Amino acid sequence: MNTTVGALIAVALLSQLLFNHPAAAEPARRNIVSPEVRADRTVTFRLLAPKVSQVILNAESGRKPMTKDDSSLWSVTVGPLEPDIYAYTFDVDGVATVDPRNGYVKTGRSTQSLVQVPGESPLYYDARDVSHGAVTVQWYPSKSLGTLRRMHVYTPPGYDAAAKVKYPVVYLLHGSGDDDSGWTWIGRANFIADNLIAEHKAKPMIIVMPAGHALPPPAPGEGKEHYVRNATAFQDDLLKDIIPFVETHYRADTNRERRAIVGLSMGGGQSLAIGLAHLDRFAWIGGFSSGGNLRDDKKELPAAGKETDKKLRLLWLACGKQDFLFNINQQFDELLTSRNIPHEFHVTEGTHTWRLWRPYLRDFLQRLF
Amino acid sequence: MNTTVGALIAVALLSQLLFNHPAAAEPARRNIVSPEVRADRTVTFRLLAPKVSQVILNAESGRKPMTKDDSSLWSVTVGPLEPDIYAYTFDVDGVATVDPRNGYVKTGRSTQSLVQVPGESPLYYDARDVSHGAVTVQWYPSKSLGTLRRMHVYTPPGYDAAAKVKYPVVYLLHGSGDDDSGWTWIGRANFIADNLIAEHKAKPMIIVMPAGHALPPPAPGEGKEHYVRNATAFQDDLLKDIIPFVETHYRADTNRERRAIVGLSMGGGQSLAIGLAHLDRFAWIGGFSSGGNLRDDKKELPAAGKETDKKLRLLWLACGKQDFLFNINQQFDELLTSRNIPHEFHVTEGTHTWRLWRPYLRDFLQRLF
Repeated sequence: MNTTVGALIAVALLSQLLFNHPAAAEPARRNIVSPEVRADRTVTFRLLAPKVSQVILNAESGRKPMTKDDSSLWSVTVGPLEPDIYAYTFDVDGVATVDPRNGYVKTGRSTQSLVQVPGESPLYYDARDVSHGAVTVQWYPSKSLGTLRRMHVYTPPGYDAAAKVKYPVVYLLHGSGDDDSGWTWIGRANFIADNLIAEHKAKPMIIVMPAGHALPPPAPGEGKEHYVRNATAFQDDLLKDIIPFVETHYRADTNRERRAIVGLSMGGGQSLAIGLAHLDRFAWIGGFSSGGNLRDDKKELPAAGKETDKKLRLLWLACGKQDFLFNINQQFDELLTSRNIPHEFHVTEGTHTWRLWRPYLRDFLQRLF
Repeated sequence: MNTTVGALIAVALLSQLLFNHPAAAEPARRNIVSPEVRADRTVTFRLLAPKVSQVILNAESGRKPMTKDDSSLWSVTVGPLEPDIYAYTFDVDGVATVDPRNGYVKTGRSTQSLVQVPGESPLYYDARDVSHGAVTVQWYPSKSLGTLRRMHVYTPPGYDAAAKVKYPVVYLLHGSGDDDSGWTWIGRANFIADNLIAEHKAKPMIIVMPAGHALPPPAPGEGKEHYVRNATAFQDDLLKDIIPFVETHYRADTNRERRAIVGLSMGGGQSLAIGLAHLDRFAWIGGFSSGGNLRDDKKELPAAGKETDKKLRLLWLACGKQDFLFNINQQFDELLTSRNIPHEFHVTEGTHTWRLWRPYLRDFLQRLF
């Protein structure tokens, strides 16, 4: 073995020992696996924590205490779980933490660990052996907000080669706990679209995923006012900056019949409010488990009648029966009915989680364009 | 106020109260700010944790105990700090956690919170008022590894408009604690390039940031063998899949004089090993705080002499004096000198952190093409 190779191997071994920096506080027991997902779809979560008195798994399915073995390894097993992607944290003596052994982390306003329980065959949101589009992390100058901002933009398979094709565009908005990476990182919007396009169930389209938090988080006690201010600021950013930028820098069709807006939770509220107030711009509108508020007190729903029926190609609402926002979505459905605004309201089982928003997106995209 | 607006405002308020899901274990004191970065560049970290007995700030600058006030709020103030981006975690009774109040999180093999201490004027890695390139999250099929993989690809300002220009390409590799998002998310490679290009200090170029972990993490006790297997697998992925994909799907120049490879830590070892063994493909090679090992026992450094001098346009090494890998980098420098391989070795102050890798990249990019 020559000197070069010897030196590099020594480096390799050193790196192995020391690659966690800053020096990890966690005791160095490197063979802990968490989460462990088994073939029977049970999942075991583990945390080495010698000095704490209680650890609770805080998951979408509820809170479950973990138990400590003789070596101070806390663990709990749940399931079998339905194939899906689940968020969780550990409650360590009252402090919510991510799983330090798990690199699959959800960022945004709340930081959580993620675990995927695979199905027996690839699911509609899995990366299958089909042509794949690309997701661009796109910075753009927002004159409305006076700052450089970020969005994610999905372009479909074949986009680069099809130099003269203009594509329809969906503006897809995230919820208040997420950021503009949420719809691809957790929501798998790109793979959902890839798979639908491959099966000819959806048209090739551009999906623009902006950042819906136009303002910094609210100060203590600043509730409704902040929400309205944020929604108004975001509407300006979307209509005056994002859409013009996309239509300049991407091969986006500018016809209203080829423009959709939809979102989840806060983003659902934004898409309903912006969309219904701007039928001249959006023919396809959706809201998943919608919350939030954009509309100020002077705005109304579009007037019922032929003009609206003609312009509004689709108004698609969905919500889980166990969602804390279910009642309000139901009331909105009833309001639309009483006003004779054509729409669909899809009621499903489930709470306020990504487990519903992925299938909602799958269903919604198939209806477009 | 009409019914619609009333309903939507009710939703807004509910969302405000409940937007953290799954239900946060942290007590609901929503006005805690952490980290708080002040104008004098001191930084205060805070964590509400009534039930734990010790919290330590675990930062790049070292470990510092936090103190608890009467309301169980732990805090510590550090600095003033040099303007830069710093990683940290909280050690909560021996468990390393991210800061639950801070959405700026580093993902990859280690999860850490990040805090940026701004300078008085925008720095070389800040988003300035210049033209910005785009970063594409690009999936590609890797035949070598038999799976779909992800990389990040930076395209410079004007890329879309310049339909016939071919650009030089830098392959930029991450370290073992990161993933393919590291160089943009923490390293700010895109903004560094934007700023240099705007100042005409670097050529417009494509920067390809692959995922350097070609294999799953090592099993317990599997050190050197895993490293070598991973490095070999990654070399195949890079040479046989990534580069051909990039040169098909992007307007990448295929001339070796317009192709560079560089990386940090594990990625530095990879770039030195792959680059020096493939001078037919790379004319520009660099290693920042290099570790790792790609070369198997049969490979050698290129032979000294005119042929190598002509092919190797730049071999650029850098390492911090306080880096745990400094000695090995110094030995590699000496080895290159003893073999008459032309190169540069830049010795700086500092340890094994991004605080060095961002300026190294800034310096290296200016030397290319």
